[in-house]
Amino acid sequence: MTYCVGLCVNEGLVMLADSRTNAGVDNISVYSKLFTWIGAPGVQPPRALAVMVAGNLSVTQEMMSLIEEENAANGPMQDQGLETILSAPSLFRVADRLGRLMADVQNRRGPGLAAAGVSSGASLILGGQIGTDRPRLFLVYQAGNSIETTADTPFMQIGEFKYGKPILDRVVRPETSLSDGVKAALLSMDATIRSNLTVGLPLDVALLPVDSFAFTRRRIEADDPVYREISKGWGDHLRSGFQGIPDLPF
Amino acid sequence: MTYCVGLCVNEGLVMLADSRTNAGVDNISVYSKLFTWIGAPGVQPPRALAVMVAGNLSVTQEMMSLIEEENAANGPMQDQGLETILSAPSLFRVADRLGRLMADVQNRRGPGLAAAGVSSGASLILGGQIGTDRPRLFLVYQAGNSIETTADTPFMQIGEFKYGKPILDRVVRPETSLSDGVKAALLSMDATIRSNLTVGLPLDVALLPVDSFAFTRRRIEADDPVYREISKGWGDHLRSGFQGIPDLPF
Repeated sequence: MTYCVGLCVNEGLVMLADSRTNAGVDNISVYSKLFTWIGAPGVQPPRALAVMVAGNLSVTQEMMSLIEEENAANGPMQDQGLETILSAPSLFRVADRLGRLMADVQNRRGPGLAAAGVSSGASLILGGQIGTDRPRLFLVYQAGNSIETTADTPFMQIGEFKYGKPILDRVVRPETSLSDGVKAALLSMDATIRSNLTVGLPLDVALLPVDSFAFTRRRIEADDPVYREISKGWGDHLRSGFQGIPDLPF
Repeated sequence: MTYCVGLCVNEGLVMLADSRTNAGVDNISVYSKLFTWIGAPGVQPPRALAVMVAGNLSVTQEMMSLIEEENAANGPMQDQGLETILSAPSLFRVADRLGRLMADVQNRRGPGLAAAGVSSGASLILGGQIGTDRPRLFLVYQAGNSIETTADTPFMQIGEFKYGKPILDRVVRPETSLSDGVKAALLSMDATIRSNLTVGLPLDVALLPVDSFAFTRRRIEADDPVYREISKGWGDHLRSGFQGIPDLPF
């Protein structure tokens, strides 16, 4: 399993992914699920793209490898003048390109995996900014279709999303600061890690302040003191809050 | 779907159930899922029992009807000197009786339901106190087997449990007061109702203070002002908490 959450707030994007991959609970590995790309210096329009993946690891790794092949300067896409995620003029077109790659990989691998009794299920979150457009955040499904965040629902989740959704529902608005957005994402992740063994540290965080076209990335290891302090401080805050809300009369 | 949560703390038991039953999202009804029994006055040992149910409504209603038939003063169980939930000497034996009824109903209805493509899945939470024993809380599964709360995990959930689990993990300990336990259960329910349409108000709450052998029950309707205040106050508390936890350094 996996848990990834992306926030699209007025100040920019927050991307947070766990790194646990498992084939059964007795076969656990660490793979980063967060990938970022920055447009080459001087190439217009400027762009910053981030992708987080969930689902069958072979499917998502194949997708990432295909993207890298397409992005290669001497690749077949460039030869034929075809659009890649580094040349698409809008984030919507990047989401569409990723959706086509997803559908291609599903068509290629799905039947064989299904015959072996293995799910080829996968999904991804795409966030980024291209040129003068605002930062945008998409969720690309297994069939290649996608949805985008709105002011009403400024976040997307993939993988084991239920444990971490209430804190996001309560706290995340377009006006939420990037700093508070990171905290909300980390608390959402913390709630998930406590409840699902197949979601685990280390974590990968990337911030994209609006118009910066540069990601601030950080890896959070299991013994990270700030992460522990955030987790503990939040638990204290939750417990202290019970004094402030009324008793139910009986 | 359904969400029911039971807490077993030092001060007693908290039982909270939603009341939404649905066959598809276009066929929604209100059924209470919380049932309580008190031992007849003067009958030793004194007892107070509560059951909350989740899953196939025909299965759980049949179970409840069978229990009522067994409890009837002139029923076949009494004639044969057999144990009912009103005569069993311990809550463990009550859980075992409920498990047998569950297994009987599953055996009787399961194959027919499966042939019709309908799940017979069901589970229940049993809480109560009998005589001088401490209050206890059991979760009875579809196969009739059961588990009991411990000091490490003093709560049980059935139905759509994931959204509401993080607040319980963070807050509920054996030392939690009944008053705070009710709040934790309501906040857990509130998180679930916000995320899953098939869990809904009105809610049924029952408290069993230790050695009281009397339930305090309350129904919470959708427009209940205290419930709304608890929900809103908690949202404010969550948002305010972000100032108190450290920023993640990048």
